[in-house]
This record gives sequence, structure tokens and C-alpha cells, in this order.
Amino acid sequence: MQGKFIVVEGLEGAGKSSAIASIVNHLQAKHIPTTTVREPGGTPLAEALRDLVKQQWQEQISPETELLLMYASRVQLVNNVIRPALDKGIWVVADRHDLSSRAYQGGGRELGDAKLQQLKQLVLGDFVPDLTLLLDLDPEIGLQRAQARGELDRIEQEALAFFQRTRARYLEIAAADSSIRVIDAEQSMPQVHRALLAALEQALFARGADT
Amino acid sequence: MQGKFIVVEGLEGAGKSSAIASIVNHLQAKHIPTTTVREPGGTPLAEALRDLVKQQWQEQISPETELLLMYASRVQLVNNVIRPALDKGIWVVADRHDLSSRAYQGGGRELGDAKLQQLKQLVLGDFVPDLTLLLDLDPEIGLQRAQARGELDRIEQEALAFFQRTRARYLEIAAADSSIRVIDAEQSMPQVHRALLAALEQALFARGADT
Repeated sequence: MQGKFIVVEGLEGAGKSSAIASIVNHLQAKHIPTTTVREPGGTPLAEALRDLVKQQWQEQISPETELLLMYASRVQLVNNVIRPALDKGIWVVADRHDLSSRAYQGGGRELGDAKLQQLKQLVLGDFVPDLTLLLDLDPEIGLQRAQARGELDRIEQEALAFFQRTRARYLEIAAADSSIRVIDAEQSMPQVHRALLAALEQALFARGADT
Repeated sequence: MQGKFIVVEGLEGAGKSSAIASIVNHLQAKHIPTTTVREPGGTPLAEALRDLVKQQWQEQISPETELLLMYASRVQLVNNVIRPALDKGIWVVADRHDLSSRAYQGGGRELGDAKLQQLKQLVLGDFVPDLTLLLDLDPEIGLQRAQARGELDRIEQEALAFFQRTRARYLEIAAADSSIRVIDAEQSMPQVHRALLAALEQALFARGADT
């Protein structure tokens, strides 16, 4: 039986890492074999691309270039790690996937969602997550949390307006896609985790859920 | 006045470098400000991508990944080097451009030309060369020449059938596009250069040419 592909999305500082740990614990308690990945990265080439895309350059990086690098990394991860795991019945919990590009490059960098969806279709076809959990919060709160963790990378240094556009695009896409569940990430951590696991149970384990 | 964008294309060992030198000499003799670029590469990020795409990896590189990296490099070069030069009236002579992806990834890796053209349109829009000079030769001859020059990179190590598909795609596209001139690169070098410069003169300098 195929594994399920679960994606955790959200802005910097939304609490994705602890959300993923909580989901993995929950699945393992059910004796479901589970692995985690993060984007960009997760294969040797994809990690090299992660380094390139996060570092500072002496030249302007075109939004299209950033987009292409994100997809190059994603294709490697999907083809070499995610698909083979799912085929073995292993569940995969991912820190970001396609929705990040649609929100950050599409919304934040204003490339437009139609272009993003076309590119996705060209290189990944119909591959989609079974469930996406979007941790939503005010970008000002998220950036404060991210700053408290240490130095910001090239993308994290964008102005607040960039993250506001990114959040708006996240919510816009989520409103039109029932496989994306929005979780209020401004709640306390125990509340966030309860909401996450409830959404997970309802989407993938409830009687009549698409499992 | 805008500069002209001239691209030299062809398989490994087709003689692109000496063709470019000959074209540049010809243009400089006319006092036309001229610069050269090569793909992949030509900007700090694009050169880093060139290294990634040419090196050997412990993992399978998906054809789509290779394609995305080639376009990422191309977008950087076009936006940061080629367009600004053309805007200053400088002519640009390029060692490979979009046609290489259509031939190598489209033909060689069998991705199909429609996909390639869609991707190109997504990230580069209507930007196209004024003239493409395609140095055509039997891949067996080209590979012998390339081998004589030294070690082959990841792409150059492909089997002969890969290069035969690449050549076939090159010729197929050229047959349908009047901005591409095919030069027989199995001739002697002086003959090749004469044919190149004749094609250049006819396309860009002849009375009634689109200049």
C-alpha cells in the first residue's frame, strides 16, 4: 500500500519543525513507518542548490531563477526520495513543498499563480500531497521568532511586505483547495499541536476519509 | 541602437570556440562593439550552476532537474549580462543558448519540444536570438575531437545514441526556423569559417536584411 504524503507549510517562525515532530510522533504511535524531508534540499544535488539559493550573491537573482532552482531541488527530492518512500508504504512528512513556491515566488515575488502551476505541471505532472497543513500567522510575529533563532538568510531578509504578500497567497490558495488545512499558529504550542493532529485525524484517518 | 544577439550551436567537437573567435574578429573589423558569453555560466550564480550540472553525482539526475538548472543559468545570463549589453548597443556572441536545451534535453533526453518551448516562454518570454549558426556534424566525429581535448564531463559521457538524438532534434528545429542557419562542420576549418561569415553577412548585413 502506498504511503501518504503530508506537507507542513507556513512562514518563517510559524513552528513547522515542532509541528513535524508532533506529527511524526503521532504516526509512529500508530506504527506507521514515517520519514521526514525538508525543502529545498534532501538529496546531494538538492542540498547544493539549497546552499546556492540561500546565500547572498553579488548579482541580482531573478525571481524566475529562484523559482527554477526551487523546482530543480523539488524534482530531485520527489523522484529520488519521496516517491520511492511512498512506493514502499512509508509515509513522508515534508517541511515545505510546491505550495511554498506558489506562496513565496508566486505571491511574495509576484510571479502569478498561473505561471507557477504551469511550471509545476511541466516538471512534476500530477504529483500532489495527500494533505497539507498550513501554519498561519502574522508575519511580524513569525519574523520576530525567526530573528530570535539567529541570522537570517537571503530570503528571510526580505521586507515585511514580501511576507505579507506570501501569507495572503497562502490563504488564497488554501481557500480554494480542500487538501490544505489552515491551522492558527498564533495559538499556544499545545493548542497548535492539538489542532494539527485533529486535522490530520480528520483528513486521513476518519471513517470515510480518503485513505 | 540595440545590439544583435548571435548564437553558435552544435555538438561537442563541432568547433564552436573557433567559430566564435572568427565571428568576433569579423565584427570587430567592422568596428562593432562585441562581447562573448558561454552557457551554462557567465554570472557568479550561473557558473556555480555550470559546475553542479557538469559534475558527477552519487544520485540519478532527473532530465527535468537538468533542464531546470540549464534554464536557471540561462535566465541569470540573459537578465544580468546579455540584455544589458544589447541595450547598450553591444553585440553578443553566445556559445549555446536556448536551442541547446531543445536539442540536448528535448532531443537527447527525450523530453519533447513542446515542454521545452513552454518552459522557455514561462521564464524568458519572447526573448530570442537574431541569428543562430548551427555547426552540424556526425556525432562520432565530434566526440573523437572532444575526447582528444581531454576528460569528458557528465553530459559528454552519454552514449552515441544520445548525441544522435540531439543532432536529429537540432536539424529538425533548424528546418522549421529561418533564424537558424546550418553550417556543415565536417568541412575544413577555413571552409567552415567562410560559410559562417557568409551566413552572418547574409542574415544581418545584406541589403534588406532585418537590421
